[in-house]
Amino acid sequence: MHVIIDLCVVPLGVGVSVSQYVVACEQIIREAGLKSALHAYGTNIEGEWDVVMAAVKKCHETIHAMGAPRITTTIKLGTRIDRHQTMADKVKSVEDKMS
Amino acid sequence: MHVIIDLCVVPLGVGVSVSQYVVACEQIIREAGLKSALHAYGTNIEGEWDVVMAAVKKCHETIHAMGAPRITTTIKLGTRIDRHQTMADKVKSVEDKMS
Amino acid sequence: MHVIIDLCVVPLGVGVSVSQYVVACEQIIREAGLKSALHAYGTNIEGEWDVVMAAVKKCHETIHAMGAPRITTTIKLGTRIDRHQTMADKVKSVEDKMS
Amino acid sequence: MHVIIDLCVVPLGVGVSVSQYVVACEQIIREAGLKSALHAYGTNIEGEWDVVMAAVKKCHETIHAMGAPRITTTIKLGTRIDRHQTMADKVKSVEDKMS
Repeated sequence: MHVIIDLCVVPLGVGVSVSQYVVACEQIIREAGLKSALHAYGTNIEGEWDVVMAAVKKCHETIHAMGAPRITTTIKLGTRIDRHQTMADKVKSVEDKMS
Repeated sequence: MHVIIDLCVVPLGVGVSVSQYVVACEQIIREAGLKSALHAYGTNIEGEWDVVMAAVKKCHETIHAMGAPRITTTIKLGTRIDRHQTMADKVKSVEDKMS
Repeated sequence: MHVIIDLCVVPLGVGVSVSQYVVACEQIIREAGLKSALHAYGTNIEGEWDVVMAAVKKCHETIHAMGAPRITTTIKLGTRIDRHQTMADKVKSVEDKMS
Repeated sequence: MHVIIDLCVVPLGVGVSVSQYVVACEQIIREAGLKSALHAYGTNIEGEWDVVMAAVKKCHETIHAMGAPRITTTIKLGTRIDRHQTMADKVKSVEDKMS
């Protein structure tokens, strides 16, 4: 099952600056061979459900190992069986109608 | 890794009434032996990461099999390694301070 | 416009224990005369859009005033114009089909 | 109060293709003079709290007026008082550490 997710991982108990943890997640996502696109409030990721979700789990494990005692994550997660759709397709479909 | 999540599954392309799909998810969660608590905008679920996430995946597979061509899900997902905390603990911690 | 929301406010830079901030939000919601229901990963709130959103803004202002330098909040937010629906209706609609 | 949000508006009861509604929201955001950045699972928006939230409300009103009987929206919403931070700052802070 192909999935597109939006991932926003928030470590708690480590102060207000959390970018080093976001960087660690980005590296995990890339090492997993997943397509992703960073934005100002999370990261879009696309791939097979099990591979994507294994990367999300590894993000939590890694951020805890980096010293964060608590993590709260928000995920939006889309699947469809009527047709294949990529992250690029979704953005293009809006941009085409804008112009 | 113990996790508490808040799950909100939204099938698209099946009209405005989605409660039968929510019911299917509730049954999947119960059959998985997971503790859960339904609220007006989702369901809290608590358990081992892999068991909880397998149930979420089964929700998507089942709702697609019921005829929904597209699903968008929102998940909040909390882990902590400083101490064990249940869903009941979280609610009690707020309610104790309210009274 | 009537709205049902699920609100989860997460203060950053104040350590791992955030229940006192959740309590402050609960009091703001009650003082606004809004119906609400606490759960393990947020609070459901129901009412007129402007009243609900004013309460959410006051939560941010209050939590900053309590000393939190940064806040990240997740909101799910539902409106419908086909019929009136309360938080209790939504839960009942699922529970009726479960039994 | 300056805010950065991530907005994902999902109309229900209008089939699986929702890009025309996303386009309507993008136009509302631009007409409000707000900075925004579209991604594959929502739109980042930055500005004064009241202006941003008025745009979100207008999105719901407009999408209902376009014929959608029901809407479910997910918003992530960040404020901070320790320093001013833009959407571009947030992305740059991660990208700088990646290289």
